[in-house]
Amino acid sequence: MEIIRTVNEMQTRSLSILQDNKTIGFVPTMGFFHEGHLSLMKEAKKENDLVVTSIFVNPLQFGPNEDYDNYPRNEKMDAERAKEVGADILFMPGVRDMYPKKMMIDMSINERVNVLCGRSRPGHFEGILTVLSKLFNIIKPNKTYFGMKDAQQVAVVDALVQDLNFPIELVALPTIREADGLAKSSRNVNLSKAERKEAIWLHKALKHGQRFVVDGEKNPAIIEKEVKKIIENETSGSVDYVELLSYPELKNVSFIDQQVILATAVFFERARLIDNLILNADGSLVKQIK
Amino acid sequence: MEIIRTVNEMQTRSLSILQDNKTIGFVPTMGFFHEGHLSLMKEAKKENDLVVTSIFVNPLQFGPNEDYDNYPRNEKMDAERAKEVGADILFMPGVRDMYPKKMMIDMSINERVNVLCGRSRPGHFEGILTVLSKLFNIIKPNKTYFGMKDAQQVAVVDALVQDLNFPIELVALPTIREADGLAKSSRNVNLSKAERKEAIWLHKALKHGQRFVVDGEKNPAIIEKEVKKIIENETSGSVDYVELLSYPELKNVSFIDQQVILATAVFFERARLIDNLILNADGSLVKQIK
Repeated sequence: MEIIRTVNEMQTRSLSILQDNKTIGFVPTMGFFHEGHLSLMKEAKKENDLVVTSIFVNPLQFGPNEDYDNYPRNEKMDAERAKEVGADILFMPGVRDMYPKKMMIDMSINERVNVLCGRSRPGHFEGILTVLSKLFNIIKPNKTYFGMKDAQQVAVVDALVQDLNFPIELVALPTIREADGLAKSSRNVNLSKAERKEAIWLHKALKHGQRFVVDGEKNPAIIEKEVKKIIENETSGSVDYVELLSYPELKNVSFIDQQVILATAVFFERARLIDNLILNADGSLVKQIK
Repeated sequence: MEIIRTVNEMQTRSLSILQDNKTIGFVPTMGFFHEGHLSLMKEAKKENDLVVTSIFVNPLQFGPNEDYDNYPRNEKMDAERAKEVGADILFMPGVRDMYPKKMMIDMSINERVNVLCGRSRPGHFEGILTVLSKLFNIIKPNKTYFGMKDAQQVAVVDALVQDLNFPIELVALPTIREADGLAKSSRNVNLSKAERKEAIWLHKALKHGQRFVVDGEKNPAIIEKEVKKIIENETSGSVDYVELLSYPELKNVSFIDQQVILATAVFFERARLIDNLILNADGSLVKQIK
């Protein structure tokens, strides 16, 4: 596996790969790999000639009071794991190289963001739009891979690719979970032992909400309230949101008659966790987002 | 010369050109070609395997009271002229194809726009950023060509390409003028006979301003005032602005000791004309913007 650390070198390398008529599958990450990341690389490996994985903890998508400095990092282990699953190039640019000076161009999105994480993390998705536009132009992938744990991110990237005509296929893959159901996340290491036990209740509560939909409940407010109650009762965390919205449009619905997301975010002492389920109108899980 | 009218077809065609390892020179235009446009295509022809020219009168870059509906159009003549100078592909997408629905992604720029045309045309450069990002992703050029008559546009595209890492070389070529000095512009056809005669004074006044710099004047305010006085005295037009700024940063300077732009915009009855000179600190014309 090649390791590339500069934007120039990566851009040149990508152009030469494309000149050889090879396809590139791209997995953008912030590193500290878990099974979720690795599942994206494995799928990318199946569907493309080469897999490029980037590790870049993007300062632009962190708010002033967020965990940019404490975001977990482990380059050496990441490189080993990426190599094991067959990544061909690991791209790890520096912040100065990605942002040599203050950005003049600003990107924003006027839909899909005034809900869920967009509401409590102002500027977060704008930062993601910017860094992904840059990475797409540097790496020029044919396909790009994201995990559905970050379902709102997937909806935002979908808007970006559509609206700006990036010639890239967006592939969204299922959330990978621990044996007890907790969604895998780099931030899980920041949970205390007690919190780690409680954290299983995010997924349990969402599954409980799903049961309501299966049983014919059509009112989002009732389901949101039930899910929130469980998380509040069973954890020491503070609920940021529990929301049920259309997906991927992320609009409020008053009646469940389409594909929806049931999502939550919970603040623990040193980690804010998120999780979600994508459901059909009958409450069954959506297997494949298209 | 091929004519392509859909985004899908153009994007597919470009990918196949790149797979053949051929380079693409791209000339984005709003059509109604004059010598200025043709000079860009001729240069693109010299420097690339294929030349793609687009004609798209982009509604996003026109304000509500601007001349979108009256912008001159002549597809047939444009096609003939583009063919004559060796364009290989003429891309003329429809508005519905470029903007199938309201854009979710917004692009803006926080420098280089609160001056010159950016001040009197709010939203103009935002619209240009959006349409060019789309066209760059559809056509995937190696180089793209712009005329220096639209010097602020060149500065904005320079910011776009730099900030978002588009792997595209921006080439800016000199303004093409009529025999009497008037900058060629598609909008010149909207001048009355009397206005057409007066319009030569934009260039004459700028040349007069240049003379001041050559003679050692270092104070932008004095030069701006002189240029404005001439245009007001010699034309029936209404001066939108006369400004002298650093280039391409487009910042106010209190003392001329670097590359600058001396630019003007003048409203006539049915046309708003612009013109500029790019000058070295000693007042000599800058031949090649890099």
